[in-house]
Amino acid sequence: MELSGGVGGARLARGLDRLESVDLTIVVNVGDDEDIHGLHVAPDIDTVVYTLAGIEGPLGWGRAGDTFETNSEIGALGHDNNFQLGDRDLAMNILRTEALRNGTPLSAFTSNVTKQLGISAFVVPATDDKQRTMIETDTGEVLGFQEYFVLRQTRETVVAVTFEGSPDPAPGVLDVITQADLVFIAPSNPPLSIWPILAVARIRDAVHRHENVVAVSPLFGGKALKGPADRVMASLGLPAGNAGVLAAYDGLVNRLIVDISDAADITELDGEVSVSALDTRLSEADAAERFCEEVLAL
Amino acid sequence: MELSGGVGGARLARGLDRLESVDLTIVVNVGDDEDIHGLHVAPDIDTVVYTLAGIEGPLGWGRAGDTFETNSEIGALGHDNNFQLGDRDLAMNILRTEALRNGTPLSAFTSNVTKQLGISAFVVPATDDKQRTMIETDTGEVLGFQEYFVLRQTRETVVAVTFEGSPDPAPGVLDVITQADLVFIAPSNPPLSIWPILAVARIRDAVHRHENVVAVSPLFGGKALKGPADRVMASLGLPAGNAGVLAAYDGLVNRLIVDISDAADITELDGEVSVSALDTRLSEADAAERFCEEVLAL
Repeated sequence: MELSGGVGGARLARGLDRLESVDLTIVVNVGDDEDIHGLHVAPDIDTVVYTLAGIEGPLGWGRAGDTFETNSEIGALGHDNNFQLGDRDLAMNILRTEALRNGTPLSAFTSNVTKQLGISAFVVPATDDKQRTMIETDTGEVLGFQEYFVLRQTRETVVAVTFEGSPDPAPGVLDVITQADLVFIAPSNPPLSIWPILAVARIRDAVHRHENVVAVSPLFGGKALKGPADRVMASLGLPAGNAGVLAAYDGLVNRLIVDISDAADITELDGEVSVSALDTRLSEADAAERFCEEVLAL
Repeated sequence: MELSGGVGGARLARGLDRLESVDLTIVVNVGDDEDIHGLHVAPDIDTVVYTLAGIEGPLGWGRAGDTFETNSEIGALGHDNNFQLGDRDLAMNILRTEALRNGTPLSAFTSNVTKQLGISAFVVPATDDKQRTMIETDTGEVLGFQEYFVLRQTRETVVAVTFEGSPDPAPGVLDVITQADLVFIAPSNPPLSIWPILAVARIRDAVHRHENVVAVSPLFGGKALKGPADRVMASLGLPAGNAGVLAAYDGLVNRLIVDISDAADITELDGEVSVSALDTRLSEADAAERFCEEVLAL
């Protein structure tokens, strides 16, 4: 099973999903979920679902080949439309909002929609409860995740990350972690995408008790390929490079996979945990599948 | 001022709106409003607003040149998408739903959006309260309006029309009626589009007290051009033709305008009220403007 944020986690999930031997569950971050125009937007869940269905957008969010008629018209009607919601993507958000308002849990809605899209993996939110990742910046502002990530384009310096709410795990999550042969922590942003999952106390406990937790580093040559992971870890006071990734998962992981560009880190970090270097570029599905086979062989 | 349903009322409003001498208010039926996928859809208000803005769809609902990506995807996700909501039209419905959930009254939202679209006329729902037109059929079924109108395509025989709720008039509506020189009742379906407005008891009282109420018949040669007005009036036990229109507005109107194709009705009906025959085809804006000038000259 896998703990996942958005695009990096989705690509790892696509690789794992191709392996016949793997009965895959992906537990997805919902700290980024946001109310946009009254609609419940769940970017990480949708990125995982769309990627597994092969209909994901090219930039790590939304749908492939989507149009933006509604979003454009929202602007024409005088409302802020900086958060781009595509027309096909809106269908998911409208139906999810309706389901939640009618009392359907997020996990049940997600399960229904994955079945509808022909996805065999079990995609489940970390929690059905409200959980919000809040970003404190060096100017003292406290921002919701999408405000920080989409509207401010990660320009702010993050000095603290907190998680509102005291959420329970969604149904099935604890059992899946406990019974899994292997817990993958996806190459997502550790503080912003994985910490919110681990902020669900009973999930953190279950991961902590697990004996085979493998984290895949999101760094290449010590830096994030895109996104602010390295900057955020630095401004939060974590060590640079993969030492920071290990510190972010303090005591939780048994193995760390770094990219071959960071093979030198093995000497430095091995001992604390097992460290291996592999080609961790997962954007192509074939490469992701090969990567997953290599990890399982370790 | 005008009491209006959807397309017929919208076309009359467009004619009146072109006359510089007219300070126009349109009080619009909301009995047809429906929850579609959790969105508050207000078909008659939107038809009036879109028509006044010159962006109305060709079939009497929705937006001109709209696309249906979201609606198509709602179907692909396994949900009923028989109620066609266009992508641009969705912007209005999403923003309205958000506004209502945040406590903004429907009248305030409508007023804001008309200003945004450059409409000078005052478009106001009959009520900000929940009001639902319910259609009882000869098989004993009770249907919401959109179920009857869109999904069953008016095939059922209507034996009763009732209005759920005991709504108050929206702010300003009573003053507008009281102070208006002339109250137009639009060539909309009398039982299905105008009765819900008159079912707001204080609106009905204000119209009843007004001395200059002009109803425009929706009939041509005794029949509705499209839509079920003549069939519904018949199955409700009202007289055929324009006698039925007068009976539908029992005691409320001072003048009835019938189409020239029904000029023979003048002899039959004149005396109860003043009856005039004019060319009531209002689909072209120029024709609608001329028609309004002729009525004001009467």
